[in-house]
Amino acid sequence: MIDPRIYGISKRLSKVSRVLSIVSSKGGVGKSTIASILSLVLRDDGYKVGLLDLDFHGPACHVILGIEKFQYEEEHGIKPYNHGGIEFASIYPFVEDNYVPLRGKDISNAITEFLSIINWGILDFLIVDMPPGMSDPFLDIVRYIPRAEHIVVTTPSKLALRTVARLLLFLKEQKYRTIGIIENMRIHESDTTRKLAEKMGTKILCRIPYDESIEESIGDPIALTKTEVYREIKRTLLEAISETSPK
Amino acid sequence: MIDPRIYGISKRLSKVSRVLSIVSSKGGVGKSTIASILSLVLRDDGYKVGLLDLDFHGPACHVILGIEKFQYEEEHGIKPYNHGGIEFASIYPFVEDNYVPLRGKDISNAITEFLSIINWGILDFLIVDMPPGMSDPFLDIVRYIPRAEHIVVTTPSKLALRTVARLLLFLKEQKYRTIGIIENMRIHESDTTRKLAEKMGTKILCRIPYDESIEESIGDPIALTKTEVYREIKRTLLEAISETSPK
Repeated sequence: MIDPRIYGISKRLSKVSRVLSIVSSKGGVGKSTIASILSLVLRDDGYKVGLLDLDFHGPACHVILGIEKFQYEEEHGIKPYNHGGIEFASIYPFVEDNYVPLRGKDISNAITEFLSIINWGILDFLIVDMPPGMSDPFLDIVRYIPRAEHIVVTTPSKLALRTVARLLLFLKEQKYRTIGIIENMRIHESDTTRKLAEKMGTKILCRIPYDESIEESIGDPIALTKTEVYREIKRTLLEAISETSPK
Repeated sequence: MIDPRIYGISKRLSKVSRVLSIVSSKGGVGKSTIASILSLVLRDDGYKVGLLDLDFHGPACHVILGIEKFQYEEEHGIKPYNHGGIEFASIYPFVEDNYVPLRGKDISNAITEFLSIINWGILDFLIVDMPPGMSDPFLDIVRYIPRAEHIVVTTPSKLALRTVARLLLFLKEQKYRTIGIIENMRIHESDTTRKLAEKMGTKILCRIPYDESIEESIGDPIALTKTEVYREIKRTLLEAISETSPK
């Protein structure tokens, strides 16, 4: 039986040309920062962009983009919050700064309900900051948005690469669409990420050096557009995304 | 009704003087590295130490300590693997480098079963590298080991502190025992971690500078004992732990 929620969610996304899912099975690699800055880059390039933060325990995109208080308007469901031209939605208004000791199954249900009421309208790109790890919400959402194109974020550290290798294997064996890898926070030259990409039949889309200015730019979208991360995403990732046919 | 597994697990830990739980709701802050190096420090100080890695999706302590292949012997349950004097157990031999697309509930059950068969014997300290985030396995294990003393790891970054604040609030309101905070990967002087500690009624146990030599020391316990992280844990954390009465 087809889960009716898959139909509901895909209907909500019917006017969205491409869904780019920013994923990582390792925490602290810069997933939310990259999702947020990629949204800024695409907006500045003239695209209509949405950004969806699905990290239930640590939603961060609103902090990165400096959206401290926001609420949704209702209009055939809920309308994303427009922040400097980016259509933004996050579970943050529902949880605020409280802890949410919900079970994985319940978080997954809450996220699914949320996904099925957001009225995105017409977008060129929807960037999704995916739930971290390979937890229930992650496993459900990759299933509920089968058209999502996955971009895997890692750092070149040994521990990150070992954890991310499991995610790449999962995406490959389950036949989800993986566009490639972003290697973030590069300090030294190293070949390990490229070797992993080859082994998993994918490629590195973009290599971003460690950028000390990110920390002080958090919360300030104008400062973010002046960072090395922004420049590198604009220089290489944008092209890599355009070259990938969404089919 | 009391869950019978709590009794089984507490019986397995009856000859362990103290259980130190290394936790973080933010990934990539160095939780596994600190758990592993703390074990080395305690061992070198003459204590009988166990190290338990409960990170199902990204077990890392065996990589950090350079234990690439190991198996458990059976003896009234299973015996931890003795590695250079440290009694080590991890779920790694059961999952190896495969992905494990289990649901949170199932992972939690698997970890609980595992906990209830490990025969730790007599230990001064058992260091537990906790499941990341605030997922099902985390929520269960804090409940199953009520005597655990929690040490919360964070970096001083804004995003990490916001996520860790939720965990500290959870531990406080649920009345779990929190010894304090380790601030890891400090680059600049900042007061934010101390303010958060005060607000949550806890303290910073140890502040560890960003240490570039960690990456190349991964897998080499002798090199690890020469890092800044090792020195700082020996210099400050050891005393902070001794000063905390476990009762």
